[in-house]
Amino acid sequence: MRKSTAQPGWVKTITLDPPSLENNTADADRFLEGLKKQLGTDALSIDLELLFGLPERLRTQGFRVRCVVFKDLDRYAVVALLDPEDPQPATGLALDIGTTSVVMVLVDLETRQPLARRTFTNPQVQIGPDILTRIHYSETREGLFHLKALLVSAINENLEALCRMKGLKKEQVYIVSAAGNTAMTHLFLGLPPGRLIREPYIPVVNRIPLLEAARIGLRVHPAGRLFVFPNIGSYFGGDLFAGILYSGLHESDTLSLLVDVGTNAEVVLGNRDWLMACAGAAGPALEGGVTKMGMRAGPGAIDRVSIDPATRKIRVQTIDNQPPRGICGSGLIDLAAALFKAGMINVQGKFNPVSCSEHLVQRDGEWHFVVVPGRETATGEDLTLTQAELDSLIRSKAAMYTILETLAHSVGVSLEDIGAFYVAGAFGSVIDPDSAIGIGMLPDLPRDRFHVLGNSAIGGAVQALLSEDGIDQVGKIRDRTTYLELNVNQAFMNRFSAAKFIPHTDLSRFPSVTVPSVLKPALESKRTPLS
Amino acid sequence: MRKSTAQPGWVKTITLDPPSLENNTADADRFLEGLKKQLGTDALSIDLELLFGLPERLRTQGFRVRCVVFKDLDRYAVVALLDPEDPQPATGLALDIGTTSVVMVLVDLETRQPLARRTFTNPQVQIGPDILTRIHYSETREGLFHLKALLVSAINENLEALCRMKGLKKEQVYIVSAAGNTAMTHLFLGLPPGRLIREPYIPVVNRIPLLEAARIGLRVHPAGRLFVFPNIGSYFGGDLFAGILYSGLHESDTLSLLVDVGTNAEVVLGNRDWLMACAGAAGPALEGGVTKMGMRAGPGAIDRVSIDPATRKIRVQTIDNQPPRGICGSGLIDLAAALFKAGMINVQGKFNPVSCSEHLVQRDGEWHFVVVPGRETATGEDLTLTQAELDSLIRSKAAMYTILETLAHSVGVSLEDIGAFYVAGAFGSVIDPDSAIGIGMLPDLPRDRFHVLGNSAIGGAVQALLSEDGIDQVGKIRDRTTYLELNVNQAFMNRFSAAKFIPHTDLSRFPSVTVPSVLKPALESKRTPLS
Repeated sequence: MRKSTAQPGWVKTITLDPPSLENNTADADRFLEGLKKQLGTDALSIDLELLFGLPERLRTQGFRVRCVVFKDLDRYAVVALLDPEDPQPATGLALDIGTTSVVMVLVDLETRQPLARRTFTNPQVQIGPDILTRIHYSETREGLFHLKALLVSAINENLEALCRMKGLKKEQVYIVSAAGNTAMTHLFLGLPPGRLIREPYIPVVNRIPLLEAARIGLRVHPAGRLFVFPNIGSYFGGDLFAGILYSGLHESDTLSLLVDVGTNAEVVLGNRDWLMACAGAAGPALEGGVTKMGMRAGPGAIDRVSIDPATRKIRVQTIDNQPPRGICGSGLIDLAAALFKAGMINVQGKFNPVSCSEHLVQRDGEWHFVVVPGRETATGEDLTLTQAELDSLIRSKAAMYTILETLAHSVGVSLEDIGAFYVAGAFGSVIDPDSAIGIGMLPDLPRDRFHVLGNSAIGGAVQALLSEDGIDQVGKIRDRTTYLELNVNQAFMNRFSAAKFIPHTDLSRFPSVTVPSVLKPALESKRTPLS
Repeated sequence: MRKSTAQPGWVKTITLDPPSLENNTADADRFLEGLKKQLGTDALSIDLELLFGLPERLRTQGFRVRCVVFKDLDRYAVVALLDPEDPQPATGLALDIGTTSVVMVLVDLETRQPLARRTFTNPQVQIGPDILTRIHYSETREGLFHLKALLVSAINENLEALCRMKGLKKEQVYIVSAAGNTAMTHLFLGLPPGRLIREPYIPVVNRIPLLEAARIGLRVHPAGRLFVFPNIGSYFGGDLFAGILYSGLHESDTLSLLVDVGTNAEVVLGNRDWLMACAGAAGPALEGGVTKMGMRAGPGAIDRVSIDPATRKIRVQTIDNQPPRGICGSGLIDLAAALFKAGMINVQGKFNPVSCSEHLVQRDGEWHFVVVPGRETATGEDLTLTQAELDSLIRSKAAMYTILETLAHSVGVSLEDIGAFYVAGAFGSVIDPDSAIGIGMLPDLPRDRFHVLGNSAIGGAVQALLSEDGIDQVGKIRDRTTYLELNVNQAFMNRFSAAKFIPHTDLSRFPSVTVPSVLKPALESKRTPLS
């Protein structure tokens, strides 16, 4: 038997006085009055569909009702009526709709515990792995519907499987929360995303109205509600707002920064009083995207690199300890940091022929740095990094740092003032902060200020299911966030130029980074003209 | 071209600033911000379905949008988006769902003028002409669905016809308002009405949630909204609340009373500060229901009766001037009043054999008063009224007066204090106040205080379509109304006994009614024991 006392969360159990000649309010009004008292608000509505069975239910359940409610802005709605004696859980579904992967977590709305989790590839990748291809594909109505149907069908199928595994029915899912970037959110809802990529970059919608999940084809409870995290423009989406909710930085007194490190750097800076967000392109190099040996994190991907400063011997670690096939983003950042630390690249990110010695080979008129020789790789071919590829990585890390610096500058703080630095996203969670700081991609803060959030989008989506407060907070976060348009003006370019050095032209910003003595003269000579 | 200035009513036209790099809010948010400014509230939501076409619409219409909004409690919802250049009207449909007849009025939501009106027989009469039969029929799920489907299909068909006549499409109907008694409201919505007639007489719902009209099968615009007038119990329904709205008594400083005269007397007394309602059975006699010659108002029905006091000759007037076939309610009340005035019935409502003379004939052991001899009737048979039938009418008029008196007494006012007396309903509109007062059915107020409202249910339903204010007012009226349960206790019975005289035992209450001198001694002898 379930508790009848007030609980936090979306499931409420109430006991009503039975009707009499002296107290002959209608059944629905009686029920709503009781629920209003428990919710502490008059703003409550109920669907007509629920009224049909209400009188019978009240009488067979002895005027005790367990119900699922949900909140839309200031108003609660009754979503479903349940039997307090029914041991079956009422559940919610949290969705992180990524461009590549979709993560779903089923949550018990009463115990507020996760019940099951599942990750699957976003089937829209069969149309195009990147967002741009999909947006172009969606420009016909058929294309848009197809992309939406692919995603929604896959969610339904995976939900079916998840429910089967836990002995549940999809109809026991009453609330869905979904976080995705702006383009994925549009495609999920079947809204045309074409203007996201065309000046002046206008989404169809920023604040998504609460709706019935069935309206977009989700096969959950027919009256189940869908909450979609809002966005603040084409490049700062619901996944970031979910991340902010998950990090709690919007409730903190400490100046905090949250960054989703990737091809796009999406950043928010602030505290309980204000939030300033921006997004900018850091380039695919950070994720290994522009290197020939770059690959997604997977078996055989080099994800950790170190170089013995004395012997300059390179040690790599691969995922699943398979023979190396390529390098993923975190490995690449490690590699660059290790090369610098060993004095094998200089402050400008150029290979030092002396210290690199036999690692440097020339092929097709280009210098290649051999990371793993062919005899040790899975393919038998050398895994190499060219100077051009390294230059691209340096530009990307400089862009990332410049974005952070510009955002901080816009509100008159410096990066060192940041008391809590949250790194969000799957990629962010595998980066070694020491390496990222070592190349000057992230600011040189005490390491205990760094917090790796992992997949904060799904974390925030789960949180929105847990209480009345979650959704409210998202609204408040969204309202309090100011979006800073990054203008690539002279000031930005000056910052960018300074950040193209390793770790930076202004070494005082990176006290924990030791510049190898062999490189110091070069740094000095370079700094003079700029300082 | 339509005006772009703010208009009262549910259709708004707004002009937005087009987006730019500096002002790159999403299309939906831009539109809603603009609309919020015009509505003067932040409580506004929009259906997902409307977002799909919004970006294209904004750009083809030069960022001018005409839209239909509707209000649910404190929140507006955007129902539909239209082109400001489209000359087609946006319309609303008002429904009076009577047990016998359904009246529909199509209203232009912008000009706020009625466009067309249509009345048809409620097809549920084929199941049963009275509510009770229908409620019994609805006790199976199939029966309930059948009753609902009959009504909704008929509304759809008649709407189709109405629209065709005016060159409109059903999809141009965006808002529906419906007023009916509590049982009809339940059947219209497909809610089981069985408990309305069983102690303790509990409706499924009093305050009906605003819903999409399509949810109950109304074929109007797919997103069209349905407002259903609330009820306050089994016997005081939405038709009465519509009547109150239409009368305006809830906004008046004057103590006012609204009564729907019929088999049930539904009464509300009050002013801008308070409203007290009650309902009680007056009996079918008032509508001619228990007389053999009783008939519905229709061709050949006697609707007016007068008797020459000198000659005691009876003059009747029939509907359409057809030969008399029967008598309808207003004719019966006229007849009783005329008989009394001519001294042909006494203060107790008994035929006076002397003054009735040749009109009284005995048949089957009963005294019959011949109203129209067979040679003048359509059927060739005498139209007669028996003493038992007259007794029944007297009891009904006494019940009506007693209900009015009890309601007034409950709030400490007397019936003479009533400054405005509204008579609602089709039947009420044909009653001659002089006759009704003459028999003591209605209080003897100066005649200019009587206001015949006609079909106030459809009047109120239309009014709810005209402005933001109408729906709000209905909610306020409902919240402010106290329902008085009529207890048939000793005080009630004493009042009832006193009211069974014509016009009343207390003649001082009916100064305008002249008691024929021939009857005075009888009245005196009767009053003594009661006074």
